[in-house]
Amino acid sequence: MHLPHLLGIEGLSRDQIVQLLDTAEEMVKVRQREMKKIPALRGVTIVNAFFEDSTRTKMSFDLAAKSLSADTMAFASKGSSTAKGESLRDTVRTIAALGVDGFVIRHHASGAPKLAMEWTGLPVLNAGDGTHEHPTQALLDAFAMRAALGPLEGKHVAIVGDLLHSRVVRSNLLCLRALDVQVTLVAPPTLMPPGIESWAARDGFAITYDLDEVISRVDSLMMLRVQRERMFGAFFPTECEYTHAYGLTRERLEVLQDHTVICHPGPMNRGLEISPEAADHARSLILEQVNAGVAVRMAALYHIFSGEGSSA
Amino acid sequence: MHLPHLLGIEGLSRDQIVQLLDTAEEMVKVRQREMKKIPALRGVTIVNAFFEDSTRTKMSFDLAAKSLSADTMAFASKGSSTAKGESLRDTVRTIAALGVDGFVIRHHASGAPKLAMEWTGLPVLNAGDGTHEHPTQALLDAFAMRAALGPLEGKHVAIVGDLLHSRVVRSNLLCLRALDVQVTLVAPPTLMPPGIESWAARDGFAITYDLDEVISRVDSLMMLRVQRERMFGAFFPTECEYTHAYGLTRERLEVLQDHTVICHPGPMNRGLEISPEAADHARSLILEQVNAGVAVRMAALYHIFSGEGSSA
Amino acid sequence: MHLPHLLGIEGLSRDQIVQLLDTAEEMVKVRQREMKKIPALRGVTIVNAFFEDSTRTKMSFDLAAKSLSADTMAFASKGSSTAKGESLRDTVRTIAALGVDGFVIRHHASGAPKLAMEWTGLPVLNAGDGTHEHPTQALLDAFAMRAALGPLEGKHVAIVGDLLHSRVVRSNLLCLRALDVQVTLVAPPTLMPPGIESWAARDGFAITYDLDEVISRVDSLMMLRVQRERMFGAFFPTECEYTHAYGLTRERLEVLQDHTVICHPGPMNRGLEISPEAADHARSLILEQVNAGVAVRMAALYHIFSGEGSSA
Repeated sequence: MHLPHLLGIEGLSRDQIVQLLDTAEEMVKVRQREMKKIPALRGVTIVNAFFEDSTRTKMSFDLAAKSLSADTMAFASKGSSTAKGESLRDTVRTIAALGVDGFVIRHHASGAPKLAMEWTGLPVLNAGDGTHEHPTQALLDAFAMRAALGPLEGKHVAIVGDLLHSRVVRSNLLCLRALDVQVTLVAPPTLMPPGIESWAARDGFAITYDLDEVISRVDSLMMLRVQRERMFGAFFPTECEYTHAYGLTRERLEVLQDHTVICHPGPMNRGLEISPEAADHARSLILEQVNAGVAVRMAALYHIFSGEGSSA
Repeated sequence: MHLPHLLGIEGLSRDQIVQLLDTAEEMVKVRQREMKKIPALRGVTIVNAFFEDSTRTKMSFDLAAKSLSADTMAFASKGSSTAKGESLRDTVRTIAALGVDGFVIRHHASGAPKLAMEWTGLPVLNAGDGTHEHPTQALLDAFAMRAALGPLEGKHVAIVGDLLHSRVVRSNLLCLRALDVQVTLVAPPTLMPPGIESWAARDGFAITYDLDEVISRVDSLMMLRVQRERMFGAFFPTECEYTHAYGLTRERLEVLQDHTVICHPGPMNRGLEISPEAADHARSLILEQVNAGVAVRMAALYHIFSGEGSSA
Repeated sequence: MHLPHLLGIEGLSRDQIVQLLDTAEEMVKVRQREMKKIPALRGVTIVNAFFEDSTRTKMSFDLAAKSLSADTMAFASKGSSTAKGESLRDTVRTIAALGVDGFVIRHHASGAPKLAMEWTGLPVLNAGDGTHEHPTQALLDAFAMRAALGPLEGKHVAIVGDLLHSRVVRSNLLCLRALDVQVTLVAPPTLMPPGIESWAARDGFAITYDLDEVISRVDSLMMLRVQRERMFGAFFPTECEYTHAYGLTRERLEVLQDHTVICHPGPMNRGLEISPEAADHARSLILEQVNAGVAVRMAALYHIFSGEGSSA
């Protein structure tokens, strides 16, 4: 399978998603060998262009590329031509003109990775564009859940927390629905995206304001990160009330089914949206998600830069 | 050919410049292969020591070194021993004592790369020292123009803009004059370096304050970047007047000869020194310059660290 | 010899220290070859996690790892999840979950590297934790002195300066005493660690407030860096008085024995704790120390990640 890019889960077929997850399984095996690298992308140069800070995602993409023997170059917007007022178009066209093979892009503006692809003609992997898509996060969540729960068809997943500002909820919804997963979104009214009801009706997922109403029925709980700095006082009264209503507290752990798994994209606010007991629980997949991230990104890079039909 | 260093265009013979451009042509071919790397500098470690920010130049040198299979290490002055008050001499001698093979140095002080070479005994490539020299920029400009216009002997090039603060004009003049190019410098009197008249008389180039007087006669227009922050109010009244008098506007595009090419070292101020129509024109070499930069830097690294007579 | 980690000199036997120094001698030879790399750690990924800035130590570890063909990844706390309030435990466990092989850690908190090892189960090299240990610095000091003076048993070393805030004095004491070196600590009373007298009695080293009393009898003088910002006014009256009482001035150079060598961990305050004449003296080992640092770190990485008994 050749992929021309990975701008989002939108546009991927169910078969393409499954193929990416299956390739990621092979990549996990590569990373477990004594020699953890394969020469698949030798001579390929990938630019990690993070216009927003994200150390862990950048390290994950970097390790994924190096594990395929690609070279990587970092572009940081601080101190760069961007800081001198250069447009995104000129910046990415200039980097492309160096003769690199593709981009991993994180940008605060939704749609920036797609524009970068159009402007440069090079493959782009979207590492998070505003609140639009973050496809590799959705794929790594699906990968970690599939590894723990088996085939995901018919499983029930709740996504809990700040849906309004989340970078990942849209990609997760698209990915899980493509895999016929039953999804329930859980958030207070102030943190639901506008128009969510009609979206839910169209795409077939459920909405609730009440975590306790759904928690005992799900196979997986995906807890979203709370961004303290813009949350309290504006969208929700206090931290304490948030934890009481939407946190995965020690008490709520008791009502989970025995097989229910716990996900969080990190970094966690322990004691706020997730209790230490939940974070370190035997059925917490949080570190498995991190590990899956490298494998899923290797799979995406592989299918874009070395898959059948690639120009490389 | 072995070069001991690349501190500047000064000191290079015409034959050496042509050899560097010819080697760069071979490097362009390397970069167009499916396997874009050659093992020429395997085991060589180059330190990219940028005491001033310059993301694009650093990326270009980094990619050039990696394309020759050299290892690179970045030295950033922020948070370093330099920030703790260490002298440049102790800093570069300490880095050299690690056992590295050479330096790429950008520094705000003219002459710093030469001092670093004397202090360490290691080869140094000057990546811009104050307003003194920026030899690889001059070489990449010559490379891009030669590729577009054919042999440069007798061609006419105008360099337009802030000659006083430019990092590249001196290297460009030396390079172009060595290749027997006819050069005209165009700037308002306040942005001409002091003593330019006697320099012009000695080295055989022309000076004018009037862009329109020369624009229709040149084979190449090299537009310099305006540094907004220190320009307006101090050296020139307003942005609008600058564009009117010295910008490559859409109107001025009309009077260029059909074959005239347009250069700019980037990053551009679109709408100030160069109009969008000029920047994106079919005869704009701006992205070709970026691409040539990697090839020219590969050629310089090759002749310094692997050329005949090298100690490596 | 396999080492499980290098958290400190404490816990290393005399034989293990000597073996590390002997392996470092082999590594010096590797770095003097035309091909300065060996494939010992190919496929191994080391994370350089510097929670405090230290450009020179980071570059040294980076070059050491690359010289063994390991891949390296940098974790910088700025702009990272740490800056977003994540705990050290979650940060290192997350990085470990990426599937890396080990850590080099510098942290302002004593004991952080040991905790990181316990939390991740991965080998850790301590690159300086508060004022606790900095084992590779002690090893490189011993290496440079042994190369200059021959076997260190019975030699006399004075460590001079800010013992209270020094990152290295504890590791140096442990290393030198293990090698049966006679050690004298020299500092004003305000810069002696509390309880130093009983420590000296137990471990068999001497203490003096008077540099001139001991200077003519030592084989090596290790001058410590003065941290201007927190020293003067608080722990010592003025810079001038410090130099007068504890600086290695030009005058004091005269009373050294002919074979006495001079060490400094860098970066130096020339004219404060060390005069230019001393820093650049023929018997100054300062640059040899830097060079030894790469070899000693290669040796440590080798014995941890590739030595007999390693799981790698």
